[in-house]
Amino acid sequence: MLYIARLLLLLISGAAYAVDPLPSWNDGAPKKAIIEFVADVTTDGSKNYVHPHARIATFDEDGTLWVEQPLYAEFFFAIDSVRQLAPQHPDWIDKEPFQSILKGDMEAIKNFSRTEIVQLIAATHSDMTIEEFHERVRDWLHKAVHPRFKKPYPDLVYKPMLEAMQFLRENQFKIYIVSGGGQEFMRVFAEKLYGIPPSHIIGTCGKVKYDYRDGHPVLFKLPEVLFIDDKAGKVEGINLFIGKHPLIAFGNSIGDREMLEWTQSNKHKTLELLVHHDDKEREYAYGAESKIGTFSDALMAESKQKNWIVISMKDDWKTIFK
Amino acid sequence: MLYIARLLLLLISGAAYAVDPLPSWNDGAPKKAIIEFVADVTTDGSKNYVHPHARIATFDEDGTLWVEQPLYAEFFFAIDSVRQLAPQHPDWIDKEPFQSILKGDMEAIKNFSRTEIVQLIAATHSDMTIEEFHERVRDWLHKAVHPRFKKPYPDLVYKPMLEAMQFLRENQFKIYIVSGGGQEFMRVFAEKLYGIPPSHIIGTCGKVKYDYRDGHPVLFKLPEVLFIDDKAGKVEGINLFIGKHPLIAFGNSIGDREMLEWTQSNKHKTLELLVHHDDKEREYAYGAESKIGTFSDALMAESKQKNWIVISMKDDWKTIFK
Repeated sequence: MLYIARLLLLLISGAAYAVDPLPSWNDGAPKKAIIEFVADVTTDGSKNYVHPHARIATFDEDGTLWVEQPLYAEFFFAIDSVRQLAPQHPDWIDKEPFQSILKGDMEAIKNFSRTEIVQLIAATHSDMTIEEFHERVRDWLHKAVHPRFKKPYPDLVYKPMLEAMQFLRENQFKIYIVSGGGQEFMRVFAEKLYGIPPSHIIGTCGKVKYDYRDGHPVLFKLPEVLFIDDKAGKVEGINLFIGKHPLIAFGNSIGDREMLEWTQSNKHKTLELLVHHDDKEREYAYGAESKIGTFSDALMAESKQKNWIVISMKDDWKTIFK
Repeated sequence: MLYIARLLLLLISGAAYAVDPLPSWNDGAPKKAIIEFVADVTTDGSKNYVHPHARIATFDEDGTLWVEQPLYAEFFFAIDSVRQLAPQHPDWIDKEPFQSILKGDMEAIKNFSRTEIVQLIAATHSDMTIEEFHERVRDWLHKAVHPRFKKPYPDLVYKPMLEAMQFLRENQFKIYIVSGGGQEFMRVFAEKLYGIPPSHIIGTCGKVKYDYRDGHPVLFKLPEVLFIDDKAGKVEGINLFIGKHPLIAFGNSIGDREMLEWTQSNKHKTLELLVHHDDKEREYAYGAESKIGTFSDALMAESKQKNWIVISMKDDWKTIFK
């Protein structure tokens, strides 16, 4: 009865909560879907009730939780690192991918091949201990500003997504980030920014080597990839780190397709959502044509077919940034 | 004052708890060390107080939580699987490591090289979906009995360690298994046996491939190793999955040496413990000479030097099995 009353209340008033849990969302299909879904899987007596042990929520990072245009934040970190490290590498001046970076050729940078990206990441993310790497990222985050918004990257987190996370957390969901970005890069800011501990950050991982320095044990970052957490790799990462299907998943691009598909193959009722960047004024408008955060026409068609919710940044979000 | 009173009480009575949290442990140095350590790092006002976020406990599995002699349980699973699968692999009859298994040559099995072990694991742990593998392990656990104790393996868990886990859990520690054993193998029983969810099982991992079967997404186990979680690999695994130093770590062999060393390099006060199998009557007595669960003389010397607590199964445990 309580369950039915709560659902009825939802249907009539659009909110079963005394305080709106998603104040930065406009009333619309995505907000309604999230609130109804959470009520449905968390209310005792609902036929779709799910035990808290299985309440897993996964969020992509770039373009889902914060700005990814004109380039991923981690790319800007890598670019700034190349500039900083260049004096120690005179050969970089006529060697790609470093040459384009040192010239500031943004078009070339945006079109780096996978091999060039791996070379760039290897050169800027390894040959140091994990602690040293964290320190470099921390230092960069303090100094770097976004080229358009002129603000530090941690200020460019989407407020509606912070609210969605908090709402899920209050409903005993375990929150994970599942991103193609570097695990150790995200670990530096995710706990403070989102309240997500290092153990809940699933990302692309480099190999590390246990070694000693001045008699003290250290973990040394090697220039080799252990695991790429993108596309199908996101599902492999979810299995490796969580070992359970997500119940709700948020993404924004073709890199998240398999994560959403895997989520939907859960035996429980699930919800899948994709942020669509269609707000040129307040953020960016891009989709099928963008190399960064591609939202292909095929993905849009698949979303409709499979009832994945497409969040229009322009229409569904009252406020963009926190 | 409360803190000092609690510590005084510990020193006088040996227990600050109304109910003994470790009833299967005899009074002695290990029990005292665990109880005092937990009081010290969890009591507000203690100079060694540690926030619950950083209360990480890691436990090795084989030989630390359950019996590992005469062979690891997972080895018996692999052996039984080879026997079961042999009719489909006529070439195994004169090919190692399968030949020795089919002959039942235990001495040869115990002396398998690392390459042979990898071949054995690949042949019995891959070429199926993760769900199918879990089903095989579940099925095996129901049928298999230990050759000496004539009991299912889940009955051969050490009661004192279950109590230690529970005591730590009640004190807001996050419990992880960190084992050389297979992650997916342990995931089948760890939640029911220890209350440890799949996301807290750190073990040796095979590569998986996201694929489709009859239109449904599946994760397919490949015959390739992603990551070996043993010795220095345990530290790399702890970083990959937890991203924080353990505060307390339990092991029993040279495979745990680096995990203990890494734990001790935590900036907080830590505790390291090793189970010494010296109880021939109730379990087994082995150490430096054993290939399985080697407790070398060097490890014993290092434990003394670094104040790692050696738990004598014979003297420190009142009861062995749950």
